[in-house]
Amino acid sequence: MNQDFFEFVSIQLTKGNKMALYVQLYDALRELILNGKLSYGYLLPPVRKFATFLGVNPGTVVSAYKLLEQNGYIFSRSGSGSYVAEITESLEEEAAPLPEAEMPPLYEKPSADCIDFATVMPPPDLLPIDDFKHILIEVLDRDQGNAFTYQDSQGFYPLRQAISQYLKQHGIKAQAENVQIISGAQQGIDIVAKALLNFGDYVFTENPTYPGAIAAFRSRGAKIVDIDMECDGLDIADLENKIRSFRPKLIYVMANLQNPTGYSYSVAKRNRLLGLARRYGALVLEDDYISELDFSATALAPLKALDREQRVIYLKSFSKIFMPGLRLAFLLMPPHLVARTLAVKHNSDISTSGLTQRAFDLYLRKGIWQNHIAALRRIYLERYQTTLATLEQFMPVEVVINRPLGGMTCWLELPDGISGRKIAAKALQQGVLITPGDAFFPRHAPDRFLRLSFAVVCAEQIIQGVQKVAGIIQEAMRIR
Amino acid sequence: MNQDFFEFVSIQLTKGNKMALYVQLYDALRELILNGKLSYGYLLPPVRKFATFLGVNPGTVVSAYKLLEQNGYIFSRSGSGSYVAEITESLEEEAAPLPEAEMPPLYEKPSADCIDFATVMPPPDLLPIDDFKHILIEVLDRDQGNAFTYQDSQGFYPLRQAISQYLKQHGIKAQAENVQIISGAQQGIDIVAKALLNFGDYVFTENPTYPGAIAAFRSRGAKIVDIDMECDGLDIADLENKIRSFRPKLIYVMANLQNPTGYSYSVAKRNRLLGLARRYGALVLEDDYISELDFSATALAPLKALDREQRVIYLKSFSKIFMPGLRLAFLLMPPHLVARTLAVKHNSDISTSGLTQRAFDLYLRKGIWQNHIAALRRIYLERYQTTLATLEQFMPVEVVINRPLGGMTCWLELPDGISGRKIAAKALQQGVLITPGDAFFPRHAPDRFLRLSFAVVCAEQIIQGVQKVAGIIQEAMRIR
Repeated sequence: MNQDFFEFVSIQLTKGNKMALYVQLYDALRELILNGKLSYGYLLPPVRKFATFLGVNPGTVVSAYKLLEQNGYIFSRSGSGSYVAEITESLEEEAAPLPEAEMPPLYEKPSADCIDFATVMPPPDLLPIDDFKHILIEVLDRDQGNAFTYQDSQGFYPLRQAISQYLKQHGIKAQAENVQIISGAQQGIDIVAKALLNFGDYVFTENPTYPGAIAAFRSRGAKIVDIDMECDGLDIADLENKIRSFRPKLIYVMANLQNPTGYSYSVAKRNRLLGLARRYGALVLEDDYISELDFSATALAPLKALDREQRVIYLKSFSKIFMPGLRLAFLLMPPHLVARTLAVKHNSDISTSGLTQRAFDLYLRKGIWQNHIAALRRIYLERYQTTLATLEQFMPVEVVINRPLGGMTCWLELPDGISGRKIAAKALQQGVLITPGDAFFPRHAPDRFLRLSFAVVCAEQIIQGVQKVAGIIQEAMRIR
Repeated sequence: MNQDFFEFVSIQLTKGNKMALYVQLYDALRELILNGKLSYGYLLPPVRKFATFLGVNPGTVVSAYKLLEQNGYIFSRSGSGSYVAEITESLEEEAAPLPEAEMPPLYEKPSADCIDFATVMPPPDLLPIDDFKHILIEVLDRDQGNAFTYQDSQGFYPLRQAISQYLKQHGIKAQAENVQIISGAQQGIDIVAKALLNFGDYVFTENPTYPGAIAAFRSRGAKIVDIDMECDGLDIADLENKIRSFRPKLIYVMANLQNPTGYSYSVAKRNRLLGLARRYGALVLEDDYISELDFSATALAPLKALDREQRVIYLKSFSKIFMPGLRLAFLLMPPHLVARTLAVKHNSDISTSGLTQRAFDLYLRKGIWQNHIAALRRIYLERYQTTLATLEQFMPVEVVINRPLGGMTCWLELPDGISGRKIAAKALQQGVLITPGDAFFPRHAPDRFLRLSFAVVCAEQIIQGVQKVAGIIQEAMRIR
């Protein structure tokens, strides 16, 4: 045996395996790097020699090296070959995701006098306290002690019925039997991860995406492959290319008003996504976190409405945006996954608060929820228009303003050489809280985005805050 | 190479590894059996030849075979050697625990006219609805919309303070900074599993124990080793023997009124357990699920009260037994694990309902919780005494009645040859619901136990029900 290849004798590539050869090679090399057998600065074998040793085409080795480089495991110097990169903490974390990494709190409490473009939930004074109090009293008087006994782990049946009705009005056929009540959207992602993913399975996500989802998938030992978001949905060519090689179990998407970009999928891309999922046997997890706030005249129903063959798991929170402290959401599951999801929910926390479920059931049946959403729409439409107009007016033209169709946030792309983190830090000094965009990328986070939320700011604050941020960006462009 | 040993060339035993050689061999053989490389009926190599092949003492092979046999992977015929056993579903499930197994609901709803010895929570009419309603209204009037905004993932700070105060009254030194609020005890076990366990780690449990804990550990890919319960706590000799070999990360115990046996640990065994955990670097997860209902004059504080060096994670539910639908519990964590636990909680469901937390905080501060427990103690002391007296009076003397010091259940050991499952099935036909004990054993469940709960039955029903069950057992003994 050629002594040069001593480190690689353990690599076994299997043709005819459902995983492409270059992905198998990628996995094997990645593991050797992560467990330290190939350390920082190690020169990888030349492509042709390595291909001969492995008995594969040179193209296979090239593709594996390329993927390793894209994911930050190696770097290449032209003319001198490919070297193992310094593995940063975030890469190691993905390799050894159990136990899970510490995450910064997503919802920081700003000081009272600053302009808060970071918080993404309505301020306390917009929450319908009196309505909810009367509903709680009505439930307790009606159900007495039953409101405090164990609930069915799948959820309070009348609530599941009310949800199916609600979904029908939004273009989704649903039966109470397939609805699983959960304690918020984050738990929904965690439960789906536990029910479907084994250690080492691939999950596709949008790039950028919601960091809480990444954390839940990694905690299950899944490998994340991110697909770039375009303004009308996932980069389908890239998706098709990668889905063929990686055969992911799950694709996690937000088809309406994606977080953080605010983009919505076109009808064509919705159908392509479902078609590819069908052809390659993947399930889609649709996180519908804010479609109620689509202000466009042609608002689309959730992706789930197009799902003819039970390939989409639909996740909807009633609390994530609108009453966050309530901790209430549901999963609409494909029928063959209902029993498994129920078992996972049972083992996670037995059931969601019965009192909350009973109260929300009444809240939905009486149409108070619908009224609450209508009231929020009126308020947020105004803030949305103010924000977009103010951004257009004050931002340097080099800043790309991605116009969302609704929601509570805008996604800003900064000019070359301007750091989102630095702009956010300077803004904080001037009393403006704004979220740098890098936290939303699973890896290789570009530092040139900002997410601006108008959830808790009035028109005056929007104008004042945007002017400040625009000034900071201009100053940074001047000295760059 | 000797062709006889072809199947075993992959086995690599490492001396000086922290895992004993026989455990390494056990793991390797177990894996070969579970992945089907050694199938049902395969004759394992003779001890001495195998030991020579592996380069170890024959004693190592003997110990590995013994452990495999104890755990049901092989069986031996004297004079003819050891054979691979038929692997039952429950064994396979432990090997491939992700995704998790379906679990039967623990809390079945009995029909109205039967005598229910199965339910282990107070009936709805014993729950303090009016008190709680007034507290809810008070909280909503006081906190307005803040009650519905996101809570700190670690929990509402005043509640964590109130809990520390409460713990001090029960002999446990605690600081609000180390308290993590969670949505019920099951979530606590799930979160501890996620925070501490990697795939393949060992966890020790009592035998029998709470099945929900087993499910949570297995869902994390942990291997369960069960230690027999004696009437004064774990079998310490067995614990010492196994802890040395397996080096578990975690030992899950209920030191007061263990579920399902009702046994409480002696002071000596509490100290031995903590000493062994310290010596072998294990953490102890104490699930204090019902210590409030210890009726003995010498009721002991929780194990945590003896923990001088932060080796015990203390898990306490306010809802599991007393207001199950509330979904509220807490973990008191060793300080160095607080941050990690918080991150896991965040990734599991962001936070526990803020409204519930705020209401319970007031409930605890005003002493209403303490009054509720005192009222339940009066009611349950009477039922406890009636149950024990009735059992003594009517049960055949061959039935072992394990007298608990309190709680809501009794644990009955049936005479030889009498099946707990069959007795429970016959009882159901006669309108008595009682839980067969086999569900509480992680594996090799003996079918000779019954758990009798007196949580929802009045004195009259207790007398009537016990007489029926006693009659069924007598009849079974007659015809056995």
